[in-house]
Amino acid sequence: QPIVNLQDHEHAAQAALGDAAWAYFSGGAADEITLRHNVAAWQNLRLSPRVLQDLRGGHTRCNLLGREWPMPLLVAPMAYQRWAHAEGESGMALAAAAQGCGMVLSHQTSTPLHDVAAMVASDAERGPLWFQLYWLADRGALRDLLAQVEAAGFEALVLTVDAPVHGVRDRERRHGMPLPEGVKAVHWPASDPKNKPSTGLCGGLADAAPTWADVQWLIGQTRLPVLLKGITHPQDAVQAVKLGAAGVIVSNHGGRVLDTLPATAELLPRIVQAVRQHHPQALVVVDGGIRRGTDLFKALALGADAALIGRPALYGLAHAGARGAAHVLRLMRDELEATMALTGCAHIQDIGIDRLWSLESF
Amino acid sequence: QPIVNLQDHEHAAQAALGDAAWAYFSGGAADEITLRHNVAAWQNLRLSPRVLQDLRGGHTRCNLLGREWPMPLLVAPMAYQRWAHAEGESGMALAAAAQGCGMVLSHQTSTPLHDVAAMVASDAERGPLWFQLYWLADRGALRDLLAQVEAAGFEALVLTVDAPVHGVRDRERRHGMPLPEGVKAVHWPASDPKNKPSTGLCGGLADAAPTWADVQWLIGQTRLPVLLKGITHPQDAVQAVKLGAAGVIVSNHGGRVLDTLPATAELLPRIVQAVRQHHPQALVVVDGGIRRGTDLFKALALGADAALIGRPALYGLAHAGARGAAHVLRLMRDELEATMALTGCAHIQDIGIDRLWSLESF
Amino acid sequence: QPIVNLQDHEHAAQAALGDAAWAYFSGGAADEITLRHNVAAWQNLRLSPRVLQDLRGGHTRCNLLGREWPMPLLVAPMAYQRWAHAEGESGMALAAAAQGCGMVLSHQTSTPLHDVAAMVASDAERGPLWFQLYWLADRGALRDLLAQVEAAGFEALVLTVDAPVHGVRDRERRHGMPLPEGVKAVHWPASDPKNKPSTGLCGGLADAAPTWADVQWLIGQTRLPVLLKGITHPQDAVQAVKLGAAGVIVSNHGGRVLDTLPATAELLPRIVQAVRQHHPQALVVVDGGIRRGTDLFKALALGADAALIGRPALYGLAHAGARGAAHVLRLMRDELEATMALTGCAHIQDIGIDRLWSLESF
Amino acid sequence: QPIVNLQDHEHAAQAALGDAAWAYFSGGAADEITLRHNVAAWQNLRLSPRVLQDLRGGHTRCNLLGREWPMPLLVAPMAYQRWAHAEGESGMALAAAAQGCGMVLSHQTSTPLHDVAAMVASDAERGPLWFQLYWLADRGALRDLLAQVEAAGFEALVLTVDAPVHGVRDRERRHGMPLPEGVKAVHWPASDPKNKPSTGLCGGLADAAPTWADVQWLIGQTRLPVLLKGITHPQDAVQAVKLGAAGVIVSNHGGRVLDTLPATAELLPRIVQAVRQHHPQALVVVDGGIRRGTDLFKALALGADAALIGRPALYGLAHAGARGAAHVLRLMRDELEATMALTGCAHIQDIGIDRLWSLESF
Ligand SMILES: Cc1cc2nc3c(=O)[nH]c(=O)nc-3n(C[C@H](O)[C@H](O)[C@H](O)COP(=O)(O)O)c2cc1C
Ligand SMILES: Cc1cc2nc3c(=O)[nH]c(=O)nc-3n(C[C@H](O)[C@H](O)[C@H](O)COP(=O)(O)O)c2cc1C
Ligand SMILES: Cc1cc2nc3c(=O)[nH]c(=O)nc-3n(C[C@H](O)[C@H](O)[C@H](O)COP(=O)(O)O)c2cc1C
Ligand SMILES: Cc1cc2nc3c(=O)[nH]c(=O)nc-3n(C[C@H](O)[C@H](O)[C@H](O)COP(=O)(O)O)c2cc1C
Repeated sequence: QPIVNLQDHEHAAQAALGDAAWAYFSGGAADEITLRHNVAAWQNLRLSPRVLQDLRGGHTRCNLLGREWPMPLLVAPMAYQRWAHAEGESGMALAAAAQGCGMVLSHQTSTPLHDVAAMVASDAERGPLWFQLYWLADRGALRDLLAQVEAAGFEALVLTVDAPVHGVRDRERRHGMPLPEGVKAVHWPASDPKNKPSTGLCGGLADAAPTWADVQWLIGQTRLPVLLKGITHPQDAVQAVKLGAAGVIVSNHGGRVLDTLPATAELLPRIVQAVRQHHPQALVVVDGGIRRGTDLFKALALGADAALIGRPALYGLAHAGARGAAHVLRLMRDELEATMALTGCAHIQDIGIDRLWSLESF
Repeated sequence: QPIVNLQDHEHAAQAALGDAAWAYFSGGAADEITLRHNVAAWQNLRLSPRVLQDLRGGHTRCNLLGREWPMPLLVAPMAYQRWAHAEGESGMALAAAAQGCGMVLSHQTSTPLHDVAAMVASDAERGPLWFQLYWLADRGALRDLLAQVEAAGFEALVLTVDAPVHGVRDRERRHGMPLPEGVKAVHWPASDPKNKPSTGLCGGLADAAPTWADVQWLIGQTRLPVLLKGITHPQDAVQAVKLGAAGVIVSNHGGRVLDTLPATAELLPRIVQAVRQHHPQALVVVDGGIRRGTDLFKALALGADAALIGRPALYGLAHAGARGAAHVLRLMRDELEATMALTGCAHIQDIGIDRLWSLESF
Repeated sequence: QPIVNLQDHEHAAQAALGDAAWAYFSGGAADEITLRHNVAAWQNLRLSPRVLQDLRGGHTRCNLLGREWPMPLLVAPMAYQRWAHAEGESGMALAAAAQGCGMVLSHQTSTPLHDVAAMVASDAERGPLWFQLYWLADRGALRDLLAQVEAAGFEALVLTVDAPVHGVRDRERRHGMPLPEGVKAVHWPASDPKNKPSTGLCGGLADAAPTWADVQWLIGQTRLPVLLKGITHPQDAVQAVKLGAAGVIVSNHGGRVLDTLPATAELLPRIVQAVRQHHPQALVVVDGGIRRGTDLFKALALGADAALIGRPALYGLAHAGARGAAHVLRLMRDELEATMALTGCAHIQDIGIDRLWSLESF
Repeated sequence: QPIVNLQDHEHAAQAALGDAAWAYFSGGAADEITLRHNVAAWQNLRLSPRVLQDLRGGHTRCNLLGREWPMPLLVAPMAYQRWAHAEGESGMALAAAAQGCGMVLSHQTSTPLHDVAAMVASDAERGPLWFQLYWLADRGALRDLLAQVEAAGFEALVLTVDAPVHGVRDRERRHGMPLPEGVKAVHWPASDPKNKPSTGLCGGLADAAPTWADVQWLIGQTRLPVLLKGITHPQDAVQAVKLGAAGVIVSNHGGRVLDTLPATAELLPRIVQAVRQHHPQALVVVDGGIRRGTDLFKALALGADAALIGRPALYGLAHAGARGAAHVLRLMRDELEATMALTGCAHIQDIGIDRLWSLESF
């Protein structure tokens, strides 16, 4: 059967992957309520088109962190992509660049960050190239990593703050994580101080969790703009920007860490409102459950500057390498363009809250 | 099994049609959320009958565009009806006329418009005969077509404005559109300027989309009343009527073009309110998901002057030709009459908003 | 498997009845939305018990139309009970009397009304004995019937006003109504004037529907209290009582006549409120979807004086005759008593609206 | 398959138990609406984490009735645990103590109360040890039992007030209660006066139900703090505390007694509010449907001091004895700790209502 949407890619990936890899890549925390709810929340928003608008010269170009890009969509940071497909993070980076989408490379990348960056950095039509970081208690190691990231040409740093301890992922626990020979997190410290058990919460792991003070230190260490990923509370978002973060990524980690968090489509509006009030220039990005061009359109209509897409890109990679991931992103772009044309939006900045239908909106 | 409702016709049609035709005729955009929601939204409205009313001499006759007709129901414009059944648009026209229902012939009709009109124009007990148009960038071709439409005796023009680019219909894309030998859109331009790719949205297709200025031009070209089909926003409805349109058809194209649009039962009330406020004489018609006499009754109770019915009529045609389509329309009429009698409405104008139950309505 | 609740009786009945009888007895109008919703609406109400109340000497006795009865529950009028089981209406009357429940005999009874009344009239522990009537255009025939009903000892007259024309029951239409040899509506006029087709709604059947004037005439013809059955609008309820009716039965005919009516649990509160305001002594009875003692308790808590139970009693009869119907009613009584004890209500009059939980109720 | 959550334990228990035992232990009243709703109501609450909080030295220790304990979780009183597994109540007590959880021993324990208490009383790291009581009409027998309970070292008395008569448990009624040879309620009076049938509700059983006066008497008879279990109404909660109860357990008996009671997650907030207003020191405990660490976290966030867990602990016991029950409690503790870390709560008292997300909460 021909593949015509992202769900088809998901089915193809499930067929291509082993059980453990499927459990790892597709699974969510606990009862996977947030995982399902992320998808449903975008679907439940209703569009409100205007007809007969002038669409000539329309396009999807957007501005992020002071530069123009072809599309307001980036591939989310995801660990161990070489477990999904031999082309791994390199294939993903090529796919993203080919479709004008950005890429956020995971701290737990299974391909060296220099290799990934080198592959696409000079592509004029590519999207943004960002690096995602988990906090490391060893500040020296952190500084070393920052230096590499900057040298390789990444344009922003994404600090993930929503996973100080491992999530309860039941499906993953059933299967374990039998990483194939040769696949590992190449930039991950062999023996992280995090692993020293103590008497605090979660066998002491929680004691090593980063705090706002650590964030402040990190921002001072790098010339790159820093985004905090995993923000769900408006006050945390405002706090981040106050401390000098360039923006936030509204995310519940794709429902992988803590179950029964609200869907990101529910969280986004109040965070946009809080951030815009005091820091109109700060970036608000969102991810979780985006599976259609209409979903991406709705994220922009709710005020996001851009969105990340996680699992679907991975699924494309899993069953067909870079070509598969590129097809996923291409479908997203085509559907976004069709949604713009059908709602009467020639440009990204035309996509406002008035393009969402609500009982109160007239 | 005997066929007693429109769902039975749907099952019979699915059995009669090939996979590709079934996908084309029954399919909707993307995840088909709006397709399902259209049906559910009528079902979810609750009736509020009054008992012991005087029903003597009751009937379903109604007035549309200055003339009286037997029933406030028309068959919606649907392309390629000869792909569903050899009797095609001619069979559909006969069926509609036989049941006192109107017909809107599609711009993409697979039967010449003169043949269809000639078949029923002189029937005294038939319903309205309207012609549906998509915008053509070639104004000369448009003018030619208008002349033919007027000459053939069509009584109104329906300009569809909700599909400037093709919808994302996944099921249809899986199957393609293998039109049988001899079935084609007989009035469709062989090479539409629309097909010239450019750099705008949707490979440039969006650049050829009509604007309000084009609508104004069109209204000036014809002596027929013009209705805009595919209106979902109250301000667009008001704008249409202000520019001289005779009315609007509240429609999301049966969920075929853009998914996650609101159900038309949700859209209708505010459009009725906005239009009636300034233009009490303008027509408001609705379509999408009408499957029961109670659904039609509810559309009228929400303020519509008439409704269109799409797929079910097609399904009747598909498995039993004109006779099948006529049976569908007959069921609708019988159910409408029963609903009127059981809610205490002797005439169409008795069907008011007070016949719908709501927690606030007392 | 032992039968422990009314659903078990339903399954047993389905197994015992032929397809056509099952379709007739269990079916509802159109998509059976109201049929299902009736049941769900009682289930969705939440109880609010008070603990540690004094329950000594508690009982379920109640007062209806000036007399005390063992239970506020009657069997609803249902046609053709001999089609369900040879013991028919006589068996049903015995079952009801044995459990202290009342019975409303249908105008379309398949057993002569005198036989049914004679069987139980003298039982000291039985419940009320009422007769249900459909309007007949032939007033002479109506007067004759009234005389028989009064003579036989029925204590009230129930005029059903919600079915002036036949409902659209799809399942029944598929199977027809192949009444067995010897089963017929013994008091139904052989040739009702209703059957003379004319040009009005529903082939003219609607022209013979009763009006408020007919109700007034009927009330004047009998010394029995008259209840109107099939009331769903507060103003109709008030109108009925104003014209001299002893009360109303809030009913949507068990979802058999017009689909997408509200559930009776939704309709009841506003009718109770409207009637009580002006006519505190008038009776308000309710039926539709009552399947548990908790449902009956909720009907009383919402202000009903009593409730009718339809299909479940029929199901008991269908598979096990009078014994089966009696078991159904016994289960209802046991569950009502348990609900009273567990919510802290020793007597029927303790069952107030404060025993229903709602977000606003504190 | 490895067991990674409480649902896995449930499946294992169903496989291990006979049909009748399974029906008894897992079943609920009537249609089991409340049973299912208890679980769903916790799931439907959404969490609202704060990131980057200082988590060092975090733990789950809590204070109940004037003493510190390792965890705010106790095993609920459940009858006949030896029917589930030979280790019965002794195994359960060991499991609870091993995980720092408390235990409430049922009045219908199948193991003598002294044996159970002796097993764990001296464990320094155990949780609270409470005894649950049903009211007995024979006050002498009650006084005897109280003396034994106090002597054995139980630290509080839990009087269950929500089951004055037996619930309508359909699944249990289908199977009966074929207690195995040697399993019985060892402290239950052989012939309870309750069993003397009379003419009141429920064959007279309701006449023996306790009243507020009885509660007052009981509180006067013992030096132990008394909690009332089965409270669902704020005014009953306030009344209990006014009469000298140490607190209340908000419970619908796990949906086993009266169906269509609200879920305890819905009941809890208003009871907390009512009790805290006048008696800030009184204990509010909750049970019903707690299956995840997030559920327990939510109970605490809504204001409960602690929660009970019923069936899941029983399921662990049923298929693997004390080891199984301990694993259930361990999973609960691990998940609670992870939830605390991931929401930014280092200590139990940090878990406030602001950690729950709601549309109004900002
Ligand atoms: C297999 C997998 C691995 C992930 N690894 C990381 C990671 O290393 N760092 C991170 O910040 N987020 C990680 N995430 C979360 C994603 O960045 C993103 O927030 C989430 O996948 C978005 O939701 P979606 O998959 O529904 O699009 C991972 C997600 C998946 C599915
Ligand atoms: C197979 C098919 C073809 C259609 N073709 C047209 C068309 O050519 N022009 C148009 O304005 N609408 C077209 N429509 C939309 C219908 O006019 C109408 O809006 C819709 O079918 C109503 O919804 P319903 O099918 O649920 O009744 C088509 C619909 C279907 C199902
Ligand atoms: C098989 C059947 C026959 C019925 N016949 C009559 C009737 O003759 N007259 C009438 O007023 N209602 C009739 N009803 C409606 C019942 O009186 C009652 O309103 C309804 O059954 C209550 O809903 P329940 O079946 O869910 O309890 C009938 C219902 C059924 C199921
Ligand atoms: C098999 C079983 C037996 C029970 N026996 C008692 C009991 O003897 N006394 C009591 O107060 N509650 C009893 N309960 C109710 C529990 O104490 C508790 O309120 C309920 O199980 C909590 O809900 P959960 O099972 O969903 O966690 C019993 C519950 C079950 C499942």
